[in-house]
Amino acid sequence: MNSKYPFLDDINYPSDLKKLSIDKLPAVCDDLRRYIIDVISQHPGHFAAGLGVVELTVALHYIYNTPYDQIVFDVGHQAYPHKILTGRKNIFTTLRSFHGMSPFPNRDESEYDAFTVGHASTSISSALGLAVAAQKLNRKDQHVIAVIGDGAMTGGMAFEALNNAGIQKNNLLVILNDNHMAIDPNKGALNDYLLDITTSKTYNRVKNDVWDILGKFNRLGPSARQFIGKVENGIKYVMMKRSNLFEGLGLRYFGPVDGHDVVHLAQLLNDLKNIKGPKLLHILTVKGKGYKFAEENQTKWHATSCAFNIKTGQTLKQTNNIILGPKFQDVFGKTITTLAEKNNKIVGVTPAMPTGCSLNIMAEKFPDRVFDVGIAEEHAVTFSAGMAAQGLVPYCNIYSSFMQRAYDQIIHDVCLPKLPVILCLDRAGLVGADGATHQGAFDISYLRHIPNLTISAPIDEIDLRNLLYTAQLPNKGPFSIRYPRGNGYNPNWEVDFAEIEIGKGRKLADGEDVAIISIGTIGHEVKIALDILAKENIFPAHFDMRFIKPLDTELLDNIFYKFKKIITVEDNSLLGGFGSSILEYASEKYLSLKIKRLGIPDRFIEHGSPQDLYKVCGFDSESIANEVKNILKN
Amino acid sequence: MNSKYPFLDDINYPSDLKKLSIDKLPAVCDDLRRYIIDVISQHPGHFAAGLGVVELTVALHYIYNTPYDQIVFDVGHQAYPHKILTGRKNIFTTLRSFHGMSPFPNRDESEYDAFTVGHASTSISSALGLAVAAQKLNRKDQHVIAVIGDGAMTGGMAFEALNNAGIQKNNLLVILNDNHMAIDPNKGALNDYLLDITTSKTYNRVKNDVWDILGKFNRLGPSARQFIGKVENGIKYVMMKRSNLFEGLGLRYFGPVDGHDVVHLAQLLNDLKNIKGPKLLHILTVKGKGYKFAEENQTKWHATSCAFNIKTGQTLKQTNNIILGPKFQDVFGKTITTLAEKNNKIVGVTPAMPTGCSLNIMAEKFPDRVFDVGIAEEHAVTFSAGMAAQGLVPYCNIYSSFMQRAYDQIIHDVCLPKLPVILCLDRAGLVGADGATHQGAFDISYLRHIPNLTISAPIDEIDLRNLLYTAQLPNKGPFSIRYPRGNGYNPNWEVDFAEIEIGKGRKLADGEDVAIISIGTIGHEVKIALDILAKENIFPAHFDMRFIKPLDTELLDNIFYKFKKIITVEDNSLLGGFGSSILEYASEKYLSLKIKRLGIPDRFIEHGSPQDLYKVCGFDSESIANEVKNILKN
Repeated sequence: MNSKYPFLDDINYPSDLKKLSIDKLPAVCDDLRRYIIDVISQHPGHFAAGLGVVELTVALHYIYNTPYDQIVFDVGHQAYPHKILTGRKNIFTTLRSFHGMSPFPNRDESEYDAFTVGHASTSISSALGLAVAAQKLNRKDQHVIAVIGDGAMTGGMAFEALNNAGIQKNNLLVILNDNHMAIDPNKGALNDYLLDITTSKTYNRVKNDVWDILGKFNRLGPSARQFIGKVENGIKYVMMKRSNLFEGLGLRYFGPVDGHDVVHLAQLLNDLKNIKGPKLLHILTVKGKGYKFAEENQTKWHATSCAFNIKTGQTLKQTNNIILGPKFQDVFGKTITTLAEKNNKIVGVTPAMPTGCSLNIMAEKFPDRVFDVGIAEEHAVTFSAGMAAQGLVPYCNIYSSFMQRAYDQIIHDVCLPKLPVILCLDRAGLVGADGATHQGAFDISYLRHIPNLTISAPIDEIDLRNLLYTAQLPNKGPFSIRYPRGNGYNPNWEVDFAEIEIGKGRKLADGEDVAIISIGTIGHEVKIALDILAKENIFPAHFDMRFIKPLDTELLDNIFYKFKKIITVEDNSLLGGFGSSILEYASEKYLSLKIKRLGIPDRFIEHGSPQDLYKVCGFDSESIANEVKNILKN
Repeated sequence: MNSKYPFLDDINYPSDLKKLSIDKLPAVCDDLRRYIIDVISQHPGHFAAGLGVVELTVALHYIYNTPYDQIVFDVGHQAYPHKILTGRKNIFTTLRSFHGMSPFPNRDESEYDAFTVGHASTSISSALGLAVAAQKLNRKDQHVIAVIGDGAMTGGMAFEALNNAGIQKNNLLVILNDNHMAIDPNKGALNDYLLDITTSKTYNRVKNDVWDILGKFNRLGPSARQFIGKVENGIKYVMMKRSNLFEGLGLRYFGPVDGHDVVHLAQLLNDLKNIKGPKLLHILTVKGKGYKFAEENQTKWHATSCAFNIKTGQTLKQTNNIILGPKFQDVFGKTITTLAEKNNKIVGVTPAMPTGCSLNIMAEKFPDRVFDVGIAEEHAVTFSAGMAAQGLVPYCNIYSSFMQRAYDQIIHDVCLPKLPVILCLDRAGLVGADGATHQGAFDISYLRHIPNLTISAPIDEIDLRNLLYTAQLPNKGPFSIRYPRGNGYNPNWEVDFAEIEIGKGRKLADGEDVAIISIGTIGHEVKIALDILAKENIFPAHFDMRFIKPLDTELLDNIFYKFKKIITVEDNSLLGGFGSSILEYASEKYLSLKIKRLGIPDRFIEHGSPQDLYKVCGFDSESIANEVKNILKN
C-alpha cells in the first residue's frame, strides 16, 4: 500500500533526515507540508506561519547538529514543522489540548526546544545569551540560530539585542523570516525598509544613478565598460556594508534569498556555518505557503479555531458548542466604533493585533483614528499617553499577558502623570489553548499597586459596553478594563449607554451565611454554582465588585456586617490579586472573618480548554459550590 | 555693582530670552552654565548632562514658542537649564530636597514640562503621541521636539517609536544629543554607528573607494573629472538617503552639527521649523562641557552627591553624616568579584549602570565576564536567561524601578523555564532625592506573584553577602535579591561565606504581646524603634523574614501561636506586598489576628531624604514605635 507521506514516515528525528541525500529534501518538504495541513484541518492550531517555514526548518535540521546546536524560534507560531521533525510527529494531533503537545516550543517538552517561547521579540536576546555562553564555555563547534519574523523584529527588545550582538564576541546567526506579516500585515518603517531591500530598489537606484552617468563613458570603448563594472561592484560592496541597517549595527548581512528553495537554503546554511561573528540571513517566505486559501487570506489562516475541509477551505460546523453571546472582542470593537462616532477625540491603539482585538471594526470606519504601531507594547502605551496629554482619548488595547511588556510605561508614563489613557486588557484570565505564556493570569496583581489607576472588570457584555462608555467621560483619569478571550452569554447586549459609578459594586443574589464576592466574567461560574447549590437548598449571597480599585468599601462594610464567611473568586493569581485586596481591607477593620480566596494558584498554568483549567485551578462552578459547602461545615 | 550673571538676571521665562538679539545668546549660555556650576557646587544634583545641553536649551527656547510648542526631554538628567529658563531659576537651589524643585521634568510642576520623565527612552514615543495629536487636532503651528541622548537611544522603546514615527503623519523633530555617554560610556553597535557617521568614515570610504577606481580616468582629461564629481554627488545622495539608519526608518536626517554653537543651532532650528514630516537632528556635544573636571571624568560628574570646591573639583567634607558601613552597591560589587574568582561560571550583566551598581569592580578584574548591554533592561534579563540555559551563572543587576521594564521577561524568559538567573534589584525601596520615577516602591508586589521565583531581601551587608553566595549554589533556580541605595551599618561585613537556608526567617528579638515582622534593611528602623520602646518598658518581639517567597510558614505558625498582635514593616507598596503575603497566609489558617501593615501607601512618593520619606510613609523608627503603642492600646 502506498503511504501518504513516504518520506516523512521514516523521519522521527533529525538524524533520520540527515540520512537522505540533499535532492530528496523537496520531497520531505512536500510530505511535511501535507501532514501539517491534514492534521490542522482536524485539530485546530497555528497554521499559516508553520507552512511558511517548512523549507527553512528542514534545511536547518539537515545542516545543523541539533539539539547540541541551538535553534531559538521567536514567538513559536512557526514551530510545528520543527516539532514534527524532532520526536513529536506522533503526538502532533494532541496539540493545544489539555495534557497534549505544547502550543509553543518549550524546554520542558523537548531538548530540541532550545528556549521556551510564546511572546514576541525575545529570540535574539536569548540566542545571544546562548551564543556568548558557547564562546565562554569554549564550545567552538556549537552553533546558535535565532529564527525571527519581520513582525517580531519591530519589538524593541529585538533591537536592544541587535545593538548588543554587534559588540559581543559570538557566532550567532539570526535568520530574518520576512513575509511582511505579523498576524495582521506588518506595519512600520522597518517593514518598508525590508520591502525596499527585497525589491532591490536601493541597489537598483544606485546602480541606475551610476549607470546613467557612467553610460556616457560608453563612447570611450570596452575598457571603460570594464571600469564601470568595477565601480558598480565597489558601490555594491559599500552599499551592502553600510546602507544596510543590520550591517550598520555590526552584523554581516546576507540575502535576501528565496526561503522556499530548500536545497539552496541548505547549501547556504552550510556555507554560513564557517563564517565567524554575528550575521543575519534575510529569507523571503510566503505565510501559508502551499495552501491556496491561507496564502490568499493570511490573517484569517494565521490560526484555525475549528476543523475545515481541505479542498474548499470551508469551516466544518461545530454542533456541540452553543454560542450564546458575541465575542468580547467584538463588543469592544463595535462599542468603541459607536463611541468614536459621538466623541471625535477617541482614537484606538493596538500593537499589531487589529484583527485579534477587533479594533479593525473601528479602523474600517475611521482609518485615520486607529494606530497599529507594530509589535511594540511599550511604545503603544507611551504613545497613547502622549496623545492623552494633548486631549485625545486613546483606548490602548493589549492582551493581558502582552501588557506585561508595558508595565513600566503604565506606571511611569500613564499613572504618575495621571493621563487619561484607557487600557483595555483583552485575553485576561485563563485563555486556554495558547497555554502558559499567554494566560492573562497576573494583570490584577501587577496593576493593583499602581497609584492613580482605576481598575475594572465587567461581568458580561453589557457591563463591558458601559465601562467602555464610562471610561471616556471627562475626568476619569487612567482607567483599565480587563475582559476575557471568547464569547459571552448575552446576545442582546447593544443597549443604550449607561454611566457606571466608579468604585461601586452590586449585589447579584441575596443569600445567607456565606457571601461570594467575585470580579469579572468568572462571576458567571458563580451564578452556575448558585444554581447547583439551590437544588440542595443552599443559598449564598453573590456580589459582583466590578472594580478592583477603588474598592467599594461601603459595600464591603455591609457584607462584613452581615456575613462572617466569605469566598472571593477571581480569574487571576491568588498572590496579590483581587482576593488579597479584600483581605487587606478586612484586616484594617474586621477580625474574625473567615475569608477563602479562589483564583489561580502559584504556578504556571498549562494549556487546555478554559473549563479544564478553571477546574484545575478550583474555580469552576462545581468547585465553587463545593467550597461553599466546605465553609459552611466549619 | 556688577552682577555675576548679567544676562541671566533678566531672564525668568523664554519670553525674556526672545527679547535678545541672536548674537547675545553665547553670553546667555555663559551665564547659565556658570549659574549651574555655582548652584550645584553647593546643592548636589545631576551635573554633567545639563552642562552639555546649555546651548541646545537656549536655542530651543529662543526659537520655539514654549509651552505651546512641546519639548520632551528624555530621562531628564539634562533638564536643569530648561528649568532655569522656564520660571524655576529662583527655586533651583531647592532641587531634589523635600518639597523642593523636582529632580526631573514634571507636568505637575510646570506647563513647560511637556511630559513627566525619569526613565530612559520614552521621549520619542510620548513626543510622537503629542505630534500625532497636534495633527489630529489641526494645530498646524504646534511643534513637538524630543531631545534624546545616544545612551537612551539604545533602549528598545526608542526604536519602536522610530519605527512607528516613520509611517505616521507628524512633524516630530527628534534631536539626538550625541555625547557617547549614558552615565557610563555608551556601549553597543549603535554607538559605533554614530561614531562612524560623526567621523564621516562612511562617506569617506565611499568617496575613497570610488575615487580609487575613477582616478584611473584621470588620464582622460578634465571632462572625465567632471563626470567623476557627478558620480560622487550621486553616491553621496544615495548614501545619505539610505545608508543612514534613521533615513532607513523613514526620518529625514540632518547633521551631525556642533551642539555648542548656539547661534548656528538657533538658525538651524529655525530652518527645521518649516520642514514637514518626521526628522532627526544629530548634534554633537560634550558631557560636562565648560567645567574641566567634569569633561575629564564624565561618569564621576554625572551627578554630585555633596558640595564641591569649584576651583579644585574637590568634594567638601560632610561633617554631620556619620557613615557606618559600606555602600550596599560595593558589597554587591566586591562580593560578586570574590565569588567569580571561585566560580568561573559567574558572569555579570548590567544595562548601562556598571558604575552605579558597582559591577565595575568585577569588570576591572574580569573584563570578559561583565556585559554592559546598554540601556536595555528587557534584553539584559533575557540575555542572562540565555546564558543560564547554557550553564553559566548570571547576576543581572538592575535598579528596582528600572526592573519594571523587564517584568515580562522575568516571567516569560526566566521563571517559566526555571532558569537560574540571579536578579539583583539595586535601589529597592525609597531612594530619596531622585523622587517618584526612581523609588523602588513596587518590586515585592510585582515579583511576588511570579511562580518559581525565590525572592529575598537582606537586612544588612552580611546578609546581602551571604544571599549573593547562596544564590549561585547549585539548583537554586530563579533568585531575586533586593537591597537599597546607600550605606549600611556594618564596617566588618567581609566575613566567611555562609549558606542561608532558603525560605527561612529568624528571630532578632524576644518580646511579648506584639510581634514585629520586617523584611529587608528597613528592619534597621525596627531595631531603633525597639530601643525607643525599651525606654518605656515595652518589648515587642522582632522577626526578620529574609525571604518574601517562599514564606517561612513554620516561623509564622510559631509567631501566630504566641502573638495575636502583629505589625509588618516593609519598604514597598502596601498593596500586594510583603504584609499582604502575611495576610494571605494568615487568612488560610488563623482567625482573630490583629495584623497592622506598615509600608508605602497607595500614591507616588515625592523626592526628599529617605528619612523624610520613611516618616511620610509612617515607617521610620518613631512611627513604628507609635504603632506598637497604638496596637497595645486596642
